[in-house]
Amino acid sequence: MNGAETLVSTLVDQGVDICFANPGTSEMHFLAALENPRMRPVLCLFEGVATGAADGWYRMKDSPASTLLHLGPGLANGLANIHNARRASSGMVNIVGEHSGAHLQYDPPLKSDIEGLARPLSHWVRRADSARSIAWDAAAAIAKGFEHPGRIATLILPGDNSWQDAGEPVPLPPLQKAARKVPSQTRIDHVAQVLRSGEPTLIILANKATRGRALELAGTVAAATGARLGSQFFTARIARGAGRVALERIPYAVALATKFLEGFRHLITVETSEPVAFFSYPDKPSLMKQEGTLVHPLVEADEDSALALEMLIDALGAKGIAPIIQPRVETPVPTGALNPASIAHALAAAMPEHCILVDESLTTGRESMALTLGALPHDLINNMGGSIGYSTPVATGAALACPDRRVFCMVGDGSAMYTIQSLWTQAREGLDITTIIFANNSYAILKAEYANMGAGTPGERALSMIDIDRPRIDWQAMAKSMGVPAVAVETAEDFTRAMIASVKEPGPQLIEVRL
Amino acid sequence: MNGAETLVSTLVDQGVDICFANPGTSEMHFLAALENPRMRPVLCLFEGVATGAADGWYRMKDSPASTLLHLGPGLANGLANIHNARRASSGMVNIVGEHSGAHLQYDPPLKSDIEGLARPLSHWVRRADSARSIAWDAAAAIAKGFEHPGRIATLILPGDNSWQDAGEPVPLPPLQKAARKVPSQTRIDHVAQVLRSGEPTLIILANKATRGRALELAGTVAAATGARLGSQFFTARIARGAGRVALERIPYAVALATKFLEGFRHLITVETSEPVAFFSYPDKPSLMKQEGTLVHPLVEADEDSALALEMLIDALGAKGIAPIIQPRVETPVPTGALNPASIAHALAAAMPEHCILVDESLTTGRESMALTLGALPHDLINNMGGSIGYSTPVATGAALACPDRRVFCMVGDGSAMYTIQSLWTQAREGLDITTIIFANNSYAILKAEYANMGAGTPGERALSMIDIDRPRIDWQAMAKSMGVPAVAVETAEDFTRAMIASVKEPGPQLIEVRL
Repeated sequence: MNGAETLVSTLVDQGVDICFANPGTSEMHFLAALENPRMRPVLCLFEGVATGAADGWYRMKDSPASTLLHLGPGLANGLANIHNARRASSGMVNIVGEHSGAHLQYDPPLKSDIEGLARPLSHWVRRADSARSIAWDAAAAIAKGFEHPGRIATLILPGDNSWQDAGEPVPLPPLQKAARKVPSQTRIDHVAQVLRSGEPTLIILANKATRGRALELAGTVAAATGARLGSQFFTARIARGAGRVALERIPYAVALATKFLEGFRHLITVETSEPVAFFSYPDKPSLMKQEGTLVHPLVEADEDSALALEMLIDALGAKGIAPIIQPRVETPVPTGALNPASIAHALAAAMPEHCILVDESLTTGRESMALTLGALPHDLINNMGGSIGYSTPVATGAALACPDRRVFCMVGDGSAMYTIQSLWTQAREGLDITTIIFANNSYAILKAEYANMGAGTPGERALSMIDIDRPRIDWQAMAKSMGVPAVAVETAEDFTRAMIASVKEPGPQLIEVRL
Repeated sequence: MNGAETLVSTLVDQGVDICFANPGTSEMHFLAALENPRMRPVLCLFEGVATGAADGWYRMKDSPASTLLHLGPGLANGLANIHNARRASSGMVNIVGEHSGAHLQYDPPLKSDIEGLARPLSHWVRRADSARSIAWDAAAAIAKGFEHPGRIATLILPGDNSWQDAGEPVPLPPLQKAARKVPSQTRIDHVAQVLRSGEPTLIILANKATRGRALELAGTVAAATGARLGSQFFTARIARGAGRVALERIPYAVALATKFLEGFRHLITVETSEPVAFFSYPDKPSLMKQEGTLVHPLVEADEDSALALEMLIDALGAKGIAPIIQPRVETPVPTGALNPASIAHALAAAMPEHCILVDESLTTGRESMALTLGALPHDLINNMGGSIGYSTPVATGAALACPDRRVFCMVGDGSAMYTIQSLWTQAREGLDITTIIFANNSYAILKAEYANMGAGTPGERALSMIDIDRPRIDWQAMAKSMGVPAVAVETAEDFTRAMIASVKEPGPQLIEVRL
């Protein structure tokens, strides 16, 4: 085997069996190695699609995907969605092609400081030094990706180490996933005491605690103590809908968030920290809790939430108490004008069981998602890093991870344009994704932020940097250009119908919601 | 004035009067400051368009543009075209928004190591420390952008320093452009001796030496000594066509380049180094000159080519010798099948005087551009950094820099998809750009490179990472989606007609060349 073949074979042996690829000349041997039938290569026409799709894959699988990127600039194009994945605690293994060592001394055009570009957003960076050690490099990268929380590993692959002989396959031991840390009993006991006080308390859940057993256990704690359960405004993935333990979402806007938080004497954090404003504004606080509110960390990012909540339930003597469960709310099909409420009602009416919602709707969906809490059970995915253009790639990766589930990708028109190339991969792979474009022909969020920032009312030139209505993007033509069928809707009932119809047809669709 | 207003006013005072912007919340005060009527803001829907457009602006103006980018991920999205600009020696002033200092301690979602991301591809990085010193920071950044060769300056702008009072305007001295260095007389005399030897010599010109007075002077040297004049395969900008001194292009493929170079005993370099293979391949050399060929640097990157060539002409006693000038070659309109030769002939027949060709045609246009040497005088722009997706943004910036000149942007379909959002800015600004998409539904260059790399014949899976024909991109729909009129052509005569027609209509057009 050559180095590239060893690399691909190590990836699949250790559980990384998909590669979101945007290859170039220096990666030809890696391409050849993708003939390995155990690896699934998925072509992306832009690197931000590849890294975002790897994030989406992780969110649904809790297992890292690999990406193939072309030297420093290829990595650079993927960095914004690596940032988002990092903030979502998603594991990822990036393979970055590079010139052969002997060639670099001549400073060829594509040379750049790849380690320098990788380090600010990777937890682990290594250059493969020889074909014979690539298997070990790959195993170390993969182990990083499987850590809890997930980590970004970036392995730089020089051409010569890719094509040179790597010797006999290395018999690597099977991947040992690092155990999550056990939280300290002292902390558990302290939090139990806080909860027993009966004072108003919000337990803020994040990352792996917003689904599965941890979420149910949190529901028991809430039922036993009267504490309320919340989530940050953005969460990597929440299991929600009828039959699940419901979380209250801390609002985005600083004024709303501080109002929401002001009644609480205690905030208990699980795999997260206390609520922080997304941006800094003149005359607005960075920390959004009320003065005098106490923050108690229950579970740190690298600890085991389910175990911690079990320990807490023991300490509270609350074992066996049933969690409070969100009842099903049948939502009639809304009619008339499209607005945040009717859009949320339409979603609630149309969402099939176990669908996946990827939300980058910004102004349109931001404050109204609570109206979908009683919908059929589903997963909700948010943008954790705040770099827009995350949703269409994440939806792509999520759909590949869960081929039996429909993905709804809700995205503002401005946001959709950053990584619009995702549509092509969705068409190519026949993915069951309904992309919902909220077309207000504007970076509408910036209009509100302009005032929030105390910059007054935007003048003509500032407005011309916020409105994207000249020209209006023709979303049906855009979808068609990349092989995705599309419709446009202008009423709530048409929107609902279009969503329901999209679920019945396999493959991707796009719905332009004209606002 | 607040910090943002001071910044914009310093930019325009010092000669940076265009800003390619993709703003976010933290840049609202900068947006407000764009009301300054001396600054032209141009909205881009993706940051790679903004940085590439700044590169295109510099190529035609020899003067830096500014960009506005949204925190670390916004900068990251612009890095690939910053890499290309850096390799083209283009100056650029990037303004990167950032959280207020006091907010960063809480690790908000969009926080990242902006300096870390900026440094690998910037020559100068600074964080504005206070509103009152922003004018000096900006002046230092702008001076960097105006250096020769042009430099990438990145100024990080925290929100608080943007909105706080900056005091009275600072009376900055007018920009002092650094003088280009004078080359050493010893080196000039040495090169004169080489040229007098009569041995076969190639003078390789680059950067500012491939146009204007330096190019004419090089023509005199060639006429006086019999030396041939060449360019690297990629050059930032070449003045070419009838009436100009013609340069022979060193081929891209290593085998062709070594063959081209093998007759030369001497290579004389002007603002460049000896020819290096673009990639490293097994069993192919990195340096492409023949063994025994001597390399003589005449002008270093920071020196004055025109002055050096004048000194050389003095040393040779060649003053007054007329350069050999490229005659006009009337090209009849080609007919029949589209292939590299008929495409080049069509270009030669259709190109209006003083048009600008931005070339990212890769396989389609690569070896046939010599057929356009006798066209009407024009400028040719190439990708210097090798990160694809450079052409549509560079064409955008070039068209804004030269509103009275038609720009032809020749781009492969695969390459066009990286920064396709450029079309929207072209439509919005009504730019006279004809985008020519060479639609072979493939990363065709990789097919050749697969064999060059010794990876054999691509198997089914490797091929599926090279062909982009499932689905075929519908280029007319793509253009329409962003407000650009489009046609498709399948014959050389239709292609010629479409190009000629596009010149007659103001505003952008797209021609899909079906291969």
